[in-house]
Amino acid sequence: MRKGTLFVVTAPSGAGKSTLLDMVLEAVPLLEYSVSVTTRPPRRGEVDGKDYHFVTRGEFEDMIERGEFLEHAVVYDNYYGTRRSAIEEALQAGKDIILDIDARGAFQVMEKKYPAVYVYILPPSITELERRLRGRATDSEDVIRKRLSLAREEMGYAEKYDYVVINDKLQEAFEDLKAIILAERRRVGKNMNEIKRIREGR
Amino acid sequence: MRKGTLFVVTAPSGAGKSTLLDMVLEAVPLLEYSVSVTTRPPRRGEVDGKDYHFVTRGEFEDMIERGEFLEHAVVYDNYYGTRRSAIEEALQAGKDIILDIDARGAFQVMEKKYPAVYVYILPPSITELERRLRGRATDSEDVIRKRLSLAREEMGYAEKYDYVVINDKLQEAFEDLKAIILAERRRVGKNMNEIKRIREGR
Repeated sequence: MRKGTLFVVTAPSGAGKSTLLDMVLEAVPLLEYSVSVTTRPPRRGEVDGKDYHFVTRGEFEDMIERGEFLEHAVVYDNYYGTRRSAIEEALQAGKDIILDIDARGAFQVMEKKYPAVYVYILPPSITELERRLRGRATDSEDVIRKRLSLAREEMGYAEKYDYVVINDKLQEAFEDLKAIILAERRRVGKNMNEIKRIREGR
Repeated sequence: MRKGTLFVVTAPSGAGKSTLLDMVLEAVPLLEYSVSVTTRPPRRGEVDGKDYHFVTRGEFEDMIERGEFLEHAVVYDNYYGTRRSAIEEALQAGKDIILDIDARGAFQVMEKKYPAVYVYILPPSITELERRLRGRATDSEDVIRKRLSLAREEMGYAEKYDYVVINDKLQEAFEDLKAIILAERRRVGKNMNEIKRIREGR
């Protein structure tokens, strides 16, 4: 069986990452979200092991201690993290995994040198990003300004990624993201067993 | 404008490369075949500059002398070759170029270290390749044996390529090949100007 690929997907808030990822997950077989570990309590309807792995703070800190995380972060007093073993298991089962994560988390994974494909989703312009953020009407002026400034800063590190998808027209951005996932499955390095089998006539 | 990518596409005879390439060229905009230079006389209906660039043997040998070819070969006493300048011009114009070529030619391009993406199209098995070659009923038993032996030998160099597309079901192989071309257009290195423009809000 072909070993899966880890796709680390990052975008500035408002670029449309979640919509795009949901579309691609729906369209492409053997593609799944990574399930994070968290210390925050489950919300109504959330299922342990599906939405998150819910653990206590003590358990989480033991995992940090044992170096089990590819990346982890604290958000509003709660821990969130991605366990290397969970990713590895899914990849070995031939699944491609999407790690939907912010730039800071993506940089942590890069530093660990874990084999992954890095995809950066961008809006067509900062001006359009601002328009979208204002359109959502969920953020205060102050938050919008911070998001825009962060977006601009993070784009300075675009070269660290492998691919960039520009979400101008949703359908085209979806096709691009899907193409990246399908193309990576055709990498020669991922198919050496298959090539050997073909060559031997089996 | 984004600079185009050179795709060098190779396959054993009978793998279905021409059909696949025609489908992809039809489906993907800004994608064209490389036009070879040849010394063989034009066939009825062939257009100079479109099907081939037709030149004399003397002209071809001068081009060899001046090192103008990315690759060239002699087939049945006629020369065929790909000029670096023609590829470079098309790429600068933002077009992706398909160089449809045998393994020997592909290896010449690799040796020149010209930036290119190498795609290898394979049948689902040698057994199936044999069935397809016999099905065409165009080749003698001797030619079929030679083709199979060459296919098996060349597959030993699969690692030199970037991608492998396995043409089991035509539609799926088409989707895979199309995905490779679209994905390569999203490479961060190909989009640095665009990312800069987005960041600057233009």
